Amino acid sequence: MAAKAIFYHAGCPVCVSAEQTVANAIDPSKYEVESVHLGTDKSRIAEAEAAGVKSVPALVIDGAAFHINFGAGIADLK
Amino acid sequence: MAAKAIFYHAGCPVCVSAEQTVANAIDPSKYEVESVHLGTDKSRIAEAEAAGVKSVPALVIDGAAFHINFGAGIADLK
Repeated sequence: MAAKAIFYHAGCPVCVSAEQTVANAIDPSKYEVESVHLGTDKSRIAEAEAAGVKSVPALVIDGAAFHINFGAGIADLK
Repeated sequence: MAAKAIFYHAGCPVCVSAEQTVANAIDPSKYEVESVHLGTDKSRIAEAEAAGVKSVPALVIDGAAFHINFGAGIADLK
């Protein structure tokens, strides 16, 4: 069964590029990728921060946060 | 046929984590990932820079550079 990975973004150009390329390249047999827009779904910002996300776009896999380039700081999404 | 993606790293802990998690999660049916250690293979630094890589670890997919967290600046590898 595929584990869950979460791609946090904010709809920014850097985010869209990372989603279309990196997030879409993830092997679906290994990870089911959920995409969360923190700009429109602010209720999940705390969850992202708890996972170590400091900026978007970021991918949380196996409990670790991987920031992919830099679109926006998480503080700017609040 | 799988396209080619290149994961540039320098053996640093941040690099190893990104390789074991993000690079290994890439769908092999979409991308064949080549791993290049710029600390030991300095002849490929210019190629990485031409692709837009400014720090490692970084993944170059479809001609775009995606920096994953921050291990070391590319200038520090020369």
